[in-house]
Amino acid sequence: MWSENPIVQQCKVRFPLVQAPMAGVTTPRLIAAVCNAGGLGSLGAAYMTPSEIREAISEIRDLTELPFAVNLFAPAAAAYDQKTIDSAQKFLGRFRNELEIPHSSPDFSSLPVFEEQIEIILEEKPRVFSFTLGLPPLPLLERLKKENILIMGTATTFDEALLLEKWGVDAVIAQGAEAGGHRATFLNCADDPMLSMAALIPLLAHALKIPVIAAGGIMNGEGIAAALSLGAAGVQLGTAFLACPESGASRAYKDALLHSHSKTTLTDVFTGKAARMLHNKFIETYQQEKGPIAPFPFQHLLTKDIRTAAGKIDRTDLLPLYAGQNYPLITNLPASEIIPLLVEQTIDTIQKLNNDLIRKRKIV
Amino acid sequence: MWSENPIVQQCKVRFPLVQAPMAGVTTPRLIAAVCNAGGLGSLGAAYMTPSEIREAISEIRDLTELPFAVNLFAPAAAAYDQKTIDSAQKFLGRFRNELEIPHSSPDFSSLPVFEEQIEIILEEKPRVFSFTLGLPPLPLLERLKKENILIMGTATTFDEALLLEKWGVDAVIAQGAEAGGHRATFLNCADDPMLSMAALIPLLAHALKIPVIAAGGIMNGEGIAAALSLGAAGVQLGTAFLACPESGASRAYKDALLHSHSKTTLTDVFTGKAARMLHNKFIETYQQEKGPIAPFPFQHLLTKDIRTAAGKIDRTDLLPLYAGQNYPLITNLPASEIIPLLVEQTIDTIQKLNNDLIRKRKIV
Repeated sequence: MWSENPIVQQCKVRFPLVQAPMAGVTTPRLIAAVCNAGGLGSLGAAYMTPSEIREAISEIRDLTELPFAVNLFAPAAAAYDQKTIDSAQKFLGRFRNELEIPHSSPDFSSLPVFEEQIEIILEEKPRVFSFTLGLPPLPLLERLKKENILIMGTATTFDEALLLEKWGVDAVIAQGAEAGGHRATFLNCADDPMLSMAALIPLLAHALKIPVIAAGGIMNGEGIAAALSLGAAGVQLGTAFLACPESGASRAYKDALLHSHSKTTLTDVFTGKAARMLHNKFIETYQQEKGPIAPFPFQHLLTKDIRTAAGKIDRTDLLPLYAGQNYPLITNLPASEIIPLLVEQTIDTIQKLNNDLIRKRKIV
Repeated sequence: MWSENPIVQQCKVRFPLVQAPMAGVTTPRLIAAVCNAGGLGSLGAAYMTPSEIREAISEIRDLTELPFAVNLFAPAAAAYDQKTIDSAQKFLGRFRNELEIPHSSPDFSSLPVFEEQIEIILEEKPRVFSFTLGLPPLPLLERLKKENILIMGTATTFDEALLLEKWGVDAVIAQGAEAGGHRATFLNCADDPMLSMAALIPLLAHALKIPVIAAGGIMNGEGIAAALSLGAAGVQLGTAFLACPESGASRAYKDALLHSHSKTTLTDVFTGKAARMLHNKFIETYQQEKGPIAPFPFQHLLTKDIRTAAGKIDRTDLLPLYAGQNYPLITNLPASEIIPLLVEQTIDTIQKLNNDLIRKRKIV
């Protein structure tokens, strides 16, 4: 099926549908369900230690023999500045008071090291390695290629996509501004033009030789047909899988996605890097008081105890509820049912458009 | 053609393609060319006096017998605050010095009055009246309906679209965040979720009973097919027509659109209301120095002499170069050729998608 589609051919999957690597949420069960239904599941391994990654890959392989992807955050140097971290830490004190937890300092050495994470990828050899937030060193990509691992990089602008192509990646994931989670931007982040999916894909589809996978704002088959119309070879959906039974999102997070009427906001208050999530009290407090924010990954570590404590008591007003702009279209169907439904909706949408055309043509 | 399409039926046009009402650029020649080619041309009359509107309508009718639209900015109350205006005026002094023009104060009474503009619409009875930036009084809409004038309102959120439907409009123009020109937002402007076209259309298409016209990020037939996939009944394109010979944009503005590599920015520095345009020195100066900005329409009047002087000497770095996010796909073809090209591209895109499907189906 989709037999001449480059993503289908490259990844050896039935459908050019990628489940986005949402770090912290992508359980082996979710990934395997997507793969077994014909899509490409992705493990969001950014926050995992090397041994956790190895274990997760082993669990996935227990559940499916089909290809899957593992995703990491490419390293981006962040200047360590004690003063910024101290003032960010001080601002966060109010939330610790509210949650009645100690004012502890995080262990900055607890961060997973990209160079160690990638060694597991090289050893375990998943079909696809995808990355976001940056650009891995070229020699590393060459080592991955030697192991016959497909490489997909994430871009938010024309320049980023062009650079990824020059770097030799096999496909570009083009992330529109409407996407949930971390924004992949790695060049001139302060100058982000916030290109939407519909603005970005046409710019890339004609200019790149490698296939483009559309991400952002895609929740159903109508969105998939739209992305394919714009010239995408495949699509990556994240939010659409967040409320699945197989997703690792907490009950409270799923409930918020299924029932909230909040807008989404792109903000760096939780991690130090811009990410789209449901607007809540934590974000509002920062915006109202212009709270100081340490750069990624430091802010991510600084807020860790608060997120953990808030998570335990379902305080969704203090948690990062990552979500794309059209999360209101979310369902709580199992991933195993979502994939065939997406395929059916895509076919229906395309056939309906084509039928209108035929009726139209007859009348002319 | 497109015989069962609600926009085609309502507006009595061949194709559900609307040329956006870009105030200051939409010459009678452009509108007539679009109409004669089968689309719906729109006169952007927001800044025109009643007699200028009457004259333009008369010129359009000399060039085409086909239906067209006239668009106005719906009135939105702005608090007059002398202190804000004075500080905005002071900041603008640097540009007057640079352009060597006098430091004059604008005549705030020179603004066109909506209630007077709308009387011309009621008398001249174009097929369509469209509005943006607000909500006209209900009794006025009822008068328009009595005259058999179709009404289209512009929305950027679900709530705005729902309100427009309740207000009795015949179609909603749903403007994505990637659109060029003024952002139509009229409810809770400070809380703008910046929904992209691909995020907005699916939310509205299923919820509204009236047809939805997609605007923002659409430059070619691939974009049109995408918008139709998402559930739009029609599309509105603005930037795609800006560099036409029939467009009233200046040579320098057209050249900038055809050759610039600038990003677009959503900013209120020129008019006091957020609008998307090419990033330039004027915007950069405001951003760097956090210059004070008077609310719309005051900032628009305050910057008028600067825009006029800069326009005379092609200083595009001091002009508002309105443009949608994917303006790099712009052409300088005549509007009379753009419309049939868009139709052809749309058909090609849909047929290609459908052919992939058939190939796919055979293999299964």
